[in-house]
Amino acid sequence: MSVTAPGGFVAAGGPGGIKSADALDVAVVATADGAAVPAAGVFTSNLATAAPVQVSQAHLAATGGRAAGVILTSGNANAATGAPGREAAERLCAGVAHGIGAQSPDEILVCQTGLIGVPFPIDTVEPRLAGIVASRASSADAACRAARAIMTTDTAPKEVTVSGVGFTVGGMAKGAAMLAPNMATMLAVCTTDAAVEPDNLRKALLEAVDASFNAITVDGCTSTNDTVLVLASGTAASPRPGALVEVLTAACRSLAEQMVADAEGSTKVAHIRVRGADSDATAQRAARKVADSMLVQCSLNGCDPYWGRIVSELGSAGTPFDPDKVSVAYGGTVVCAAGMAVAHDEAVVSAHMAGCHIEIDCDLGLGSGEAVVLGTDLGHGYIDENRTTS
Amino acid sequence: MSVTAPGGFVAAGGPGGIKSADALDVAVVATADGAAVPAAGVFTSNLATAAPVQVSQAHLAATGGRAAGVILTSGNANAATGAPGREAAERLCAGVAHGIGAQSPDEILVCQTGLIGVPFPIDTVEPRLAGIVASRASSADAACRAARAIMTTDTAPKEVTVSGVGFTVGGMAKGAAMLAPNMATMLAVCTTDAAVEPDNLRKALLEAVDASFNAITVDGCTSTNDTVLVLASGTAASPRPGALVEVLTAACRSLAEQMVADAEGSTKVAHIRVRGADSDATAQRAARKVADSMLVQCSLNGCDPYWGRIVSELGSAGTPFDPDKVSVAYGGTVVCAAGMAVAHDEAVVSAHMAGCHIEIDCDLGLGSGEAVVLGTDLGHGYIDENRTTS
Repeated sequence: MSVTAPGGFVAAGGPGGIKSADALDVAVVATADGAAVPAAGVFTSNLATAAPVQVSQAHLAATGGRAAGVILTSGNANAATGAPGREAAERLCAGVAHGIGAQSPDEILVCQTGLIGVPFPIDTVEPRLAGIVASRASSADAACRAARAIMTTDTAPKEVTVSGVGFTVGGMAKGAAMLAPNMATMLAVCTTDAAVEPDNLRKALLEAVDASFNAITVDGCTSTNDTVLVLASGTAASPRPGALVEVLTAACRSLAEQMVADAEGSTKVAHIRVRGADSDATAQRAARKVADSMLVQCSLNGCDPYWGRIVSELGSAGTPFDPDKVSVAYGGTVVCAAGMAVAHDEAVVSAHMAGCHIEIDCDLGLGSGEAVVLGTDLGHGYIDENRTTS
Repeated sequence: MSVTAPGGFVAAGGPGGIKSADALDVAVVATADGAAVPAAGVFTSNLATAAPVQVSQAHLAATGGRAAGVILTSGNANAATGAPGREAAERLCAGVAHGIGAQSPDEILVCQTGLIGVPFPIDTVEPRLAGIVASRASSADAACRAARAIMTTDTAPKEVTVSGVGFTVGGMAKGAAMLAPNMATMLAVCTTDAAVEPDNLRKALLEAVDASFNAITVDGCTSTNDTVLVLASGTAASPRPGALVEVLTAACRSLAEQMVADAEGSTKVAHIRVRGADSDATAQRAARKVADSMLVQCSLNGCDPYWGRIVSELGSAGTPFDPDKVSVAYGGTVVCAAGMAVAHDEAVVSAHMAGCHIEIDCDLGLGSGEAVVLGTDLGHGYIDENRTTS
């Protein structure tokens, strides 16, 4: 059900003519009655901000954190497209506002993903909008069409539903490369029927994003278009304190894990835990350095438990480090302690490295700070996917 | 001639038994008479500092910036090896000090490169040291054997000689991956016959390294063992002010360019120039972000002029950026101006992208800061080289 699982939402996906004549490339998520409800967003930290990010930020500011719907397109990022790009994004919002009966285009948010620097074909998409919006429904099928319409190099749609006590959170996402700290070429839209004020919704989203999308990395690249949105219809109860953050975080975590598992050309998901740091923030920075390392990623691709590279990355993370205190374990088997190799059962480690889920535990031996970052391996597939855009 | 081109130096290379029974893996560079002369070093910023780095730093401190020789080994980094590793590095120094007739092991510096976390086989190497040291000579052949003995995944030895007015600088280096800001799995030893005090030699080296080894990148990894050393025999004249920096920089630049051209699995060298930044430091940071980007590197591998990724990296470099002011050119052909695509001769750009030397010019349009970083592409070869250590 994903985005239509919570009460009060509908979705649609259809061909807008961006990718080809009939590929799914336009998605809409909206309130069932077209009324604006509390909404919040977290956007890319990249300063080369794409037009849709600029427009969504302006709309959320204009409405004081309310929205009636979201339009998402794939195949063209509408980034590095200047004033014409911003106008195209506004026209997308206007089309959806008209279609769902919203009071103003400002009540529509917009997310786009795809190639950067190519003028967005708004004249092709605009005439098709009404038909796509008209197909919106609260069915699981409609939600799935929406999730499929935002895929780029994703090999599968990414959807989630998590139930809280008296309310539900649903979500869909796309993302396959450029997944890094502070988000990257990833779009996610969450919905909930919880009754919550815009301010509290925004705070809950920030917390959920930090513990999910900001704790994954594929290639360290931060995209021009990253956006995570949440809309709250209020058709259900008001959650007890903390419950919304908890359920929203669980939903975002599931979407984030689906993204890493579907990373371009990857064969493994690596859980990189750093403990014993002097703070949680330091631990996260060190874990990201390990996860982002091309050399560590190559070792993972080759199933090689070369812990020396992990120690080297921990030492160059720009965080406190003592080479005589560090230890490293693969799948619970310690291979390095007090900064040196230790005898261990190599067959057990080899068997773990051959699997799809790799657990790497690093203890810096300095304090009680701890963090986990999800990463992946680097194989030929990533290069093949990214060598050319044509 | 490289390290033996300046007067007063000898070199040797031989099999120490680290890689295999008879592969070249031990090099020595020393003063012809075994006397200590002014010396300086720049070392890795990685806090997981290898034993040889710790020992060389201690020796330079003990002698007040003087050395009679350098021993270099390849095949084992002697990193993450604890106290036994430090003892092994000290024994290497003691062996060379004895062989060349230096006054103390403190007068010998040590560089090592290879696998991290493997105990160094000092008992194998130590008995072979005397023979290798005894083969030292001032010939070009001896210098080349030394340069070959420090190779790991390098496909060719890296040597340079640059003549100043009345003095000469020679050098040798190794480095194929982990080449990043603040150096990385790179070793370089320079020699000069210039008469110069230790303090001035150190300052000249810092300046030269900044403009050469610190302006190249392959994979953004910073190694545990990076070291650049220089020894000055003083058998020639005292250079005019500024001349030593100039000639030493030219030598280091040549070695750095040789490293990038021989980067693991690479097919191209990219000159990434960022201008119009608010400072030179900002420009360098932005240029490095572009050069380190896996997505940009994949595009280079595929000869794809996808400038959108370059703009995206400039926008996420953490430096001032205005998406409406940036321009990008490949080989002098502008493909993006004022943040948007501009019509251009695509055949000319394609021809440039197909070559081995790619020129990428980015103008941020904000100020007069400027920098060039040398990078490379990311292809299957890099992964194949780094998947496994066996």
